[in-house]
Parts: sequence; C-alpha cells; structure tokens
Amino acid sequence: MHAPPGHLANDLATITADVLARVRVRAPRVHCITNAVAQAFTANVLLAVGAIPSMTIAADEVAAFTAGANALLVNLGTFDAERREAVEIAIEVATEEGLPWVLDPVFVNRSEPRAAYARTLAARKPGAIRLNRAEFKAVAGFEPEAEPDGAALSAYALDCLSVIGLTGPVDVVTDGARTITIENGDPLMASVTAMGCAGSGLLAACLAVENDSFLATAAALLALGVAGEVASMTAHGPGSFAAGILDALHGLKRDVLIQRARVV
Amino acid sequence: MHAPPGHLANDLATITADVLARVRVRAPRVHCITNAVAQAFTANVLLAVGAIPSMTIAADEVAAFTAGANALLVNLGTFDAERREAVEIAIEVATEEGLPWVLDPVFVNRSEPRAAYARTLAARKPGAIRLNRAEFKAVAGFEPEAEPDGAALSAYALDCLSVIGLTGPVDVVTDGARTITIENGDPLMASVTAMGCAGSGLLAACLAVENDSFLATAAALLALGVAGEVASMTAHGPGSFAAGILDALHGLKRDVLIQRARVV
Amino acid sequence: MHAPPGHLANDLATITADVLARVRVRAPRVHCITNAVAQAFTANVLLAVGAIPSMTIAADEVAAFTAGANALLVNLGTFDAERREAVEIAIEVATEEGLPWVLDPVFVNRSEPRAAYARTLAARKPGAIRLNRAEFKAVAGFEPEAEPDGAALSAYALDCLSVIGLTGPVDVVTDGARTITIENGDPLMASVTAMGCAGSGLLAACLAVENDSFLATAAALLALGVAGEVASMTAHGPGSFAAGILDALHGLKRDVLIQRARVV
Repeated sequence: MHAPPGHLANDLATITADVLARVRVRAPRVHCITNAVAQAFTANVLLAVGAIPSMTIAADEVAAFTAGANALLVNLGTFDAERREAVEIAIEVATEEGLPWVLDPVFVNRSEPRAAYARTLAARKPGAIRLNRAEFKAVAGFEPEAEPDGAALSAYALDCLSVIGLTGPVDVVTDGARTITIENGDPLMASVTAMGCAGSGLLAACLAVENDSFLATAAALLALGVAGEVASMTAHGPGSFAAGILDALHGLKRDVLIQRARVV
Repeated sequence: MHAPPGHLANDLATITADVLARVRVRAPRVHCITNAVAQAFTANVLLAVGAIPSMTIAADEVAAFTAGANALLVNLGTFDAERREAVEIAIEVATEEGLPWVLDPVFVNRSEPRAAYARTLAARKPGAIRLNRAEFKAVAGFEPEAEPDGAALSAYALDCLSVIGLTGPVDVVTDGARTITIENGDPLMASVTAMGCAGSGLLAACLAVENDSFLATAAALLALGVAGEVASMTAHGPGSFAAGILDALHGLKRDVLIQRARVV
Repeated sequence: MHAPPGHLANDLATITADVLARVRVRAPRVHCITNAVAQAFTANVLLAVGAIPSMTIAADEVAAFTAGANALLVNLGTFDAERREAVEIAIEVATEEGLPWVLDPVFVNRSEPRAAYARTLAARKPGAIRLNRAEFKAVAGFEPEAEPDGAALSAYALDCLSVIGLTGPVDVVTDGARTITIENGDPLMASVTAMGCAGSGLLAACLAVENDSFLATAAALLALGVAGEVASMTAHGPGSFAAGILDALHGLKRDVLIQRARVV
C-alpha cells in the first residue's frame, strides 16, 4: 500500500518553498470557521504567508464568503450552535464549488458529541484532516489507551479519501498510498494556544495553490515546523516565540527550508 | 466646496499630539461592538493610548455600557445575529446621548447583506466611517472595477454628513469640505489582522476628546501611521511588528509626530 | 478574626514556587468560560505555566469539558446568553465533582444586571473571587464613592465562604481569617487587555494543585506580579510587555520569586 517516499522526502523542502511562493503571489482567500481562541492567531499566520483570511460565521453570510474563497477551514474548537450551522452551509458550498477544505477536529477526545460530529464531517471528503494523536484516536474510533500505528493511520486516510496530517513532536502525513514523517518543530509550539489551529489554516492556504493534497499538507507542516525552529533561536519563552513564528513564516527562505528539513 | 487645507496639513502633527494627550489625561471609555478576531488587538490599542475599552455585545447590557461610554465603535466583521441586535441598541443609545460613534464596514465588499446593512448604518450619522477602498466602493454603491476619485469621496461624506477615513497605502480623510492625505504608515500594517479595526477603535477614542470629527479622524490615522513607521524600525516581521506598534502608540512623542508626518 | 500572617508573608515566595512546580508537573486541565477578548491571552498564560486550557461554551459540551477538568474559571466579561447557560451547567458540574472554581466578575461596576448575576454566583461558593476595587464595590453592594477597608473585604470573604483576591497597584488576598498584601507588579499590567482575566485563569490552575484556596490565590497573584516585574525590565511598551510576561511566567524561577516578593 505504501509507495516508497524516496525522493519525495528529499524534495519536500523545495516543494514547500514553491508552494509558499505561490501563496505569496496568488494571495488565496481562506475562509475560516474556527474557534474564538484561535481566530486572531490563525488570521495572523495566514497574513504572514500572504494569504487573505476571513472569519465570519453568520449564517446569512458564510455562503458568500465561502463561495468567494479559495479554500475553507473547518475547526471544531469552541463549538457552538451558530458555528455548527455555519459549518453545514460552508461545506455544502465548498463541495458544490470544488473548493478544498480542511477539517481540524480540535479536542474531540474531550467531548463525545464533538467526536460524533467530526466523524460525519470526515465522511464528507475534506481535502485534509489535521489533528493530534489523542484527537485521531477519538475520531477514528480507537480507545484512549490504544496505540494505533502507521498502518492504522493509512487505513483511516484511505477510508476518508482524505490526507491525514497527524501533528506532535513528530508529524506524520499520509494519504494511504504515500506516508512521510516530518521531524521539524520546537517544544514551544505546544505552549502557544492555537498553534495547531493556525497550522490548519496554513494548510488550507497551501491546498488553495497545490492540487496534490498530500504535498500541500506536508508543505504546510514542514513550513510551520521550520518556522518554529527559526523562532526558537531568538525566543525567550512562549510569548516572544508566538511573535517570532509569525516573523519567521513571513520571511521563510528556500535555503532555510532546504537546510533544516528533516523529512523521512 | 474644498476649503484649501493649507496650514491644517502643516499643523496636523501638533493637533494629533494634543488629541493623544487629551486621550491620555481623560481616559475616555470606548465601547466596541467588534468582531471576535479584532477584539483583543483593538482593546490593546485603546489601552496603549490610555483609553478604556469595553466589548460586551449582550443585548441586556449593551445599553448600559454605551450610555456609560464616551464613544462607540460599530465594526461589522464577524457579523452575527447577536452583534446586529447589539448594534441597534448601541446606536440608539449613542444617538440619544449625543455620543460620537465610528462605523467600520469590514469586508462589505464580500457580502451584499452586510453592504446593505452598512448603508442603513451610514445613514444614521456616524461621526466617522473608516474603511478601505474596496469597502468604500461597496458601501457607496460603486462597481468593483470603478475608480472613484476624491470628488466622489467628498460627495459621499456630504451625503452621509460624516467624515470618511479611507485607509490604504495612502490615507484620505474628508468631511466633504476639507480633505487631507496622510502618507504615513508601513506595508507590515497590512500583515497584522485587525490593524484597520483597531485603527477605528483609536479613531473612536479621538472622537471622544475632539469635537471636530475631521480633526479627530485625521489625528487617529496619522498617529497609527507614524506608530507603524516607528514599529517597523525594529520589527523582524508581522509578529514583532504587532507588538511594536502597541509599544509605539504607548510612547508616541510629539516631536516624532512632527518629524515624521507626511500630510498633504 | 485576623490571624497574624507572620511567617506566611515570609514564606509566600517559596509556597508560590512549590505551587508552580506542581502545576508544571501535573499539567492541570482548566476549563475557562471567559470573554472572547480574554480567551487567547488566558489560554497562553495557562500554557506558559504548564496547565492545559479549554474554552468551549457550547451547552452540550461544557458539562463534559468541566467534568474532565481539574478547575473551572467563570469570567463574566462579554456576557452573552450562551455563556450564561454554559456557566450554569459548568458550576453545577463543578459543585457535584468537588472541582474548585474561580469567579471573575469583570466590569460588574458597569452593568447592574451583571452585578446582580455575579452576586448569585458569589453565593455558590467559588473557591476564589478575583476582582478589582470598583468591581468589589459593585458586587459587595457598596456605593461607587464608598471606600471599603480591609475589614469590609474580610467580612465579605466570610460571607461568601470564599477567598477574595483584590487586585490593583497593591493586591490584597483574604479568606476572612487570614489577609496578606502583595506589592509586586508593574503599571504596564493595566495596559494589556485581559491581564486580570488571565490572572484569574492562573489562579484556577493554582487551585487545581493547592487545596488551601488562600495560598493558591496568593501564589497566583504573587507569580503574576513578579512575572510582570521581570517582563518590564526588557519591555518597550505594552506590546512587548504582553509577550514578555508570558516568557517570564514560563521560566519563573524560585530564586527570582524569593528575591522579588514584597508581601506583607
């Protein structure tokens, strides 16, 4: 089932630089239905790479915003009634318009109604699903104490017809056929709220300019991981790190990606 | 129709320093009905200059908060049902109390229901309307491809009996009779979410201490533009720039305003 | 009624270092029902000290999140209908589960309905109530021009069976029997939005690992005050200060607490 990644791993830094360059030139519009905690940082990550975020969740506007966007982010954190209605409308529009969308099932491990809803969304063919290990287990139906391996992840990706971006100390990206592992990043990324959510926003921007969802997902996670490493070099803690990762994403250079990428 | 701006342009830096000094001394309360993305940054901009922000949108509280405030901000980003109700109540209270208020019709170019609603608000005599060029065209009824000139802007201001603060690489402020152009600012301002929204908050604070809405609007935009230039001198990208512009607004000195102002 | 604080004041720095060390090791989950303005900064303060924030206010999820948490924060800023419903559910669950919770009656001095609601919550035995002087007067039923003294504060704490953490240029902590005064902090803390709200979040994290609510409250306020002093040493204004206080909380050392604590 797994095609040998081979040159893909070697080339990911270059591919990522190309994807980011396209984001900067094309300035894709990314409509984000995301939690209130994450909205500002997600918008700032998107602006830092040159994309144009919008965030409305009002039922009578979300269709127009989604139809006018180049990609959609559906994040389930702070999941209230109004956001749920907005999600329904936005995914319908995205599906009609052939717009790629990202599912970020935040904290589904903490709320069974949320996990159940996330499963229905995962069945609606998101271009990519970005989540951490605990969230993956909840959405894919594993017990909390289970330790699903790479094969389980690939099987789930095939099942959803989606790309899975599993983030953590090491990130794994798979579409079921191809799997790569990204070892970049910094521990401070876990000490800034909405870092994962904002990564999903970046992923949506990459999907807007790269048709191969697997490459778009891998590019987004590599860019964020390398930016985190760059930011950590001057950060004194999570506050300066949060500002620093925006600075790093804004100025992320091809040679820094190539030099730092640790992809297997 | 246009009075020659003459000494006004020359004096704007001094006027701005005076307005900011009054904000610092009087600590005006600014009630902000604004989008969730912009709330924290807007509050921080207001606190940085010495104003006191409040942000509730609950229907049974917004009247008391508005009545107790010295100015009101109505921002249409993330425009949901609850905010719409809050806007109605707040504008009614502001009108009764003679409180100045600012309209910020965020992204009206992306949603026709929002543009239609913004038009009804613009007719209710806001002290000032701050918006970018695309938003101006949507709210004033121009086609997206139209290129309205200064005369169109002045005509619209006269029509609304309001001051228009059109922001972009160059800012234009007009009340129909007087028009000035502010060339200050930095490109990084466009890479920080809610910069425009926060500018509208700053404008509301200036309206609270300066009865001439034209001067208040010009002062707010000059202060923000100069603070952006100061921040860009030490920023490494949009993250450190966002923190830096708050630092710069907090400590903005009269001589820096005079030295840097580029007003025509 | 007042036990002489004596060695308590001397030992608070050490106690605070111990409490923070427990937070870092145990990583308590803190569910926060808080205003939209404060959510991101509160989450970042909690992450900075090693706690795990969650923020949902959706009625069908808040019970699960609260039941799975180690402490609860109830903040009344941006007080809308959905948050009110969430508060009811969350406090009920917290009471059933014996979970400590913090009441932060933001801006009750600006809205009588909010003050009335805060009084009903204060009667439901929060572990601690953190508020400023104007908010204390509104919630405890003093006139705005009254100047309640320490005895009034102690009486109110006894009345609520709660610890009161009164913050301002000088912080006062009392449970009615014990009272201490913390003189740490920096004026820039008042120029960053949600600093008080985030302090209440930190207090909830401390309650999760310290059964003596009086000590937990004093520890949280001392930690925040000292972190503010550390941040002010390198800050250039409120923007860099906000990042700096997160950095300082993340790396707050025992000897810095001991060296800087000014507790009476």
